[in-house]
Amino acid sequence: MQIDINADLGEGFGAYRIAEDEALFPLLTSANVACGFHAGDPTTMDRTIGLAKDHDVALGAHVGYADRQGFGRRRMEVAAADLRNDILYQLGALFALAAARGVRVTHMSAHGALGNVSAESRAVAEAVVEAGRAFDPDMVFLVMGGSALDLVAREAGNQTISNFIADRAYEASGLLVSRARPDAVIKDLAKVKARVVRAAREGVIDAVDGTPLKVTARSVLVHSDTANAVAIAQAVHAAVAEAGGTPTSLPKLLGQIQ
Amino acid sequence: MQIDINADLGEGFGAYRIAEDEALFPLLTSANVACGFHAGDPTTMDRTIGLAKDHDVALGAHVGYADRQGFGRRRMEVAAADLRNDILYQLGALFALAAARGVRVTHMSAHGALGNVSAESRAVAEAVVEAGRAFDPDMVFLVMGGSALDLVAREAGNQTISNFIADRAYEASGLLVSRARPDAVIKDLAKVKARVVRAAREGVIDAVDGTPLKVTARSVLVHSDTANAVAIAQAVHAAVAEAGGTPTSLPKLLGQIQ
Amino acid sequence: MQIDINADLGEGFGAYRIAEDEALFPLLTSANVACGFHAGDPTTMDRTIGLAKDHDVALGAHVGYADRQGFGRRRMEVAAADLRNDILYQLGALFALAAARGVRVTHMSAHGALGNVSAESRAVAEAVVEAGRAFDPDMVFLVMGGSALDLVAREAGNQTISNFIADRAYEASGLLVSRARPDAVIKDLAKVKARVVRAAREGVIDAVDGTPLKVTARSVLVHSDTANAVAIAQAVHAAVAEAGGTPTSLPKLLGQIQ
Amino acid sequence: MQIDINADLGEGFGAYRIAEDEALFPLLTSANVACGFHAGDPTTMDRTIGLAKDHDVALGAHVGYADRQGFGRRRMEVAAADLRNDILYQLGALFALAAARGVRVTHMSAHGALGNVSAESRAVAEAVVEAGRAFDPDMVFLVMGGSALDLVAREAGNQTISNFIADRAYEASGLLVSRARPDAVIKDLAKVKARVVRAAREGVIDAVDGTPLKVTARSVLVHSDTANAVAIAQAVHAAVAEAGGTPTSLPKLLGQIQ
Repeated sequence: MQIDINADLGEGFGAYRIAEDEALFPLLTSANVACGFHAGDPTTMDRTIGLAKDHDVALGAHVGYADRQGFGRRRMEVAAADLRNDILYQLGALFALAAARGVRVTHMSAHGALGNVSAESRAVAEAVVEAGRAFDPDMVFLVMGGSALDLVAREAGNQTISNFIADRAYEASGLLVSRARPDAVIKDLAKVKARVVRAAREGVIDAVDGTPLKVTARSVLVHSDTANAVAIAQAVHAAVAEAGGTPTSLPKLLGQIQ
Repeated sequence: MQIDINADLGEGFGAYRIAEDEALFPLLTSANVACGFHAGDPTTMDRTIGLAKDHDVALGAHVGYADRQGFGRRRMEVAAADLRNDILYQLGALFALAAARGVRVTHMSAHGALGNVSAESRAVAEAVVEAGRAFDPDMVFLVMGGSALDLVAREAGNQTISNFIADRAYEASGLLVSRARPDAVIKDLAKVKARVVRAAREGVIDAVDGTPLKVTARSVLVHSDTANAVAIAQAVHAAVAEAGGTPTSLPKLLGQIQ
Repeated sequence: MQIDINADLGEGFGAYRIAEDEALFPLLTSANVACGFHAGDPTTMDRTIGLAKDHDVALGAHVGYADRQGFGRRRMEVAAADLRNDILYQLGALFALAAARGVRVTHMSAHGALGNVSAESRAVAEAVVEAGRAFDPDMVFLVMGGSALDLVAREAGNQTISNFIADRAYEASGLLVSRARPDAVIKDLAKVKARVVRAAREGVIDAVDGTPLKVTARSVLVHSDTANAVAIAQAVHAAVAEAGGTPTSLPKLLGQIQ
Repeated sequence: MQIDINADLGEGFGAYRIAEDEALFPLLTSANVACGFHAGDPTTMDRTIGLAKDHDVALGAHVGYADRQGFGRRRMEVAAADLRNDILYQLGALFALAAARGVRVTHMSAHGALGNVSAESRAVAEAVVEAGRAFDPDMVFLVMGGSALDLVAREAGNQTISNFIADRAYEASGLLVSRARPDAVIKDLAKVKARVVRAAREGVIDAVDGTPLKVTARSVLVHSDTANAVAIAQAVHAAVAEAGGTPTSLPKLLGQIQ
């Protein structure tokens, strides 16, 4: 049983840091790297690519809205053609910095508000998929399972991988519990670990109302910008081991490399 | 006799336009396109790439400092590693948007203050060349002849092409006359044309003090953001014809394509 | 009969210009000046304030979303407290540059998407009004008549002035005809003039379906960034004269100054 | 003996934090707050102003170059008129947010590269002073003693206060030891404390070469963005007490308020 453990990294900007990237990389198999629109800048990207290479972690593009002040978390009414161009721009920028280090961009995901909007709106999902496919016809999309982005990408013939979010509660519908609710985030590390073990072994977790919920845990996302992100990543790592799984990067999981 | 006629284009930003790109493209053989740092944005870049493709104009990257407010015309103290990363980011961004239209990036040049500083400083020129070569080991650099960038690129084994600037007066030393002087810009179109004809035929122009100055006019630059840019481009076009030259894009000039 | 003629000006950025401010100022009585978020920058603001002073034109703040790439025309999901702070920041910035020239900020208006959203949403209108009143308890708001911003500002005890838009068709409901429709903009200058004359004299225009629509034309807005903005401003000026009106700045109109 | 203890605060941006402002405020008497160009944003500014008010800390404007990516630490070739306008813009923005909380802007200082350039260049210092005086003819400038900014401000008739930097080594000339040297920063808290005690009591410290150096320690600066900034601030606080001094904000020190 191969399981990918990934996080959104490289989200600093200039003199700013927002996560302990150096401590997280050894615990990950894939990384989704900010591309300078919602976070990140060329030198932060270059450093993050170097860390990915050093730790043999698969490098993905984590694309977002052009809104550094809002960290890409604010919805923006961006025309589809502009959004497609913004994303292609980000993909190319990451590609060039990665290629200079001999690293390949293996997948992409959408950040913050763009993640949410592309999960809800087919039109936005189509702009994201069009950009990804224009960059690489075989682009792999890291998605919320069942989201518009998931569906549109698969309809286009592209592979998608659903992220299971280790420290977030789920509704019985499979949606994430809103962060507005106090029980949205699971802070108890033992519970986080137990969920991942059960998700990996049995393909099921308890939804927030206690209902059993089927999940796929081929890929587990750790939020890098929470206070105890490293501890959570360690808990996930331990859970994968306890479940008898092997931490495996996305391209290996997909059989693209061995 | 093959002569390239090029201009810096795609220098709008969002709702802003600064040059008549549509009118200039039919008169050019190569275009140097802003990449979103000093000017340009993803959709402006995409549109400009489309124009280059439609007019069979070679596409180059015109890279600059991250200073939209100053249009890249203000010197900035950017560390060499940061500058290299900033340029690589811009190259990759243009590459991805161009590749999506099936267009190749054939060359690069440095804008405004980065152009001036990389002409003077070997350290800055080295950062520019390192970025260009990291993107493409055979990168062609469009330069001021004899500048630090010209020398460093050639020492690295890369091809450079010197731009002859049609509407600017030159010192006897081969440097451009400072814009602070009233005679820096040649506004009389007949004079512009006559200079290009003579430069193309004889390889010589009169420096500002009357001294004959040897020049190579394999590539002629038209400034896109002057008031009469289209008229100047037409004068240059006519001059190339009168001198018996053939307007030829940079990659053709270099024998890369036929 | 006193009638204000105003336009949104100072919407250039760095090297970019988007309107013929110099030609428009002599035709206006009030100007709404961009404050560096959707457009404008400190030097553009300073120059525009200077023009306002030279032409004895009342100076208002034209505040917008922090989105230069989208020229403030894209809706953004900005939290109310952030929006209030963004607007207060812009007001203060304009104030300081104006005060240095001995010019007073007499009113404010909301640009583009912020104008539209604050016309629809009470919550957003409240953030705009809170910012305006925090800056000046007696702030005058230049609004779309009947918009949420108009109502919220008046409920707070502030004066509002409704802009009549000279070159835009209106629905019978009093709303503007959407720009998506071909008849949204009235391009015939004679028609623009006739509408303003009738609006000024009779307080009525024909809605797009022919229904008579009551309007107040105490203040007429000219869009500065249309191709023939100067001609439209001249037509409005002529219309005001023909209707027997006197071009009068907002503070004079409101009796704040004589 | 009244001694001001100040720090540069509010240097976060959007989701980013770079210093422990909340922990530092209780230890300070004055704060120099970033105004959105090199760091800070309207909501960060508003929050920081609130902290200053809660802790009865004097509020100053810490102005910088428009370079968030470089955190204002990169020299930029900004024309004097543009720099003056950029600074006036920042001062007005802080003023409006502060006034809305009933807080006064009591002083200003220059950040990073602007601090260094305005210390060396009279032309740049003049632009800073012109902006400060245009905002408030009685502006108080917090400066490096003997810098161009110090001299130009005093020549203009304005009060200046020299910052003594608690944790930085000084040359015998009175200049700071370059950060390129390993002994530039004094990390030993006992030494930091001893220096401040001696500076306060005797007006002298040992320069890096052992030479006694006269200093005025009416105002002591703590760098907020070093790892142990809070511990340094505590050491400075303790030193002021040990020297028999009273922590006193800039306006009190200057007798502007009691």
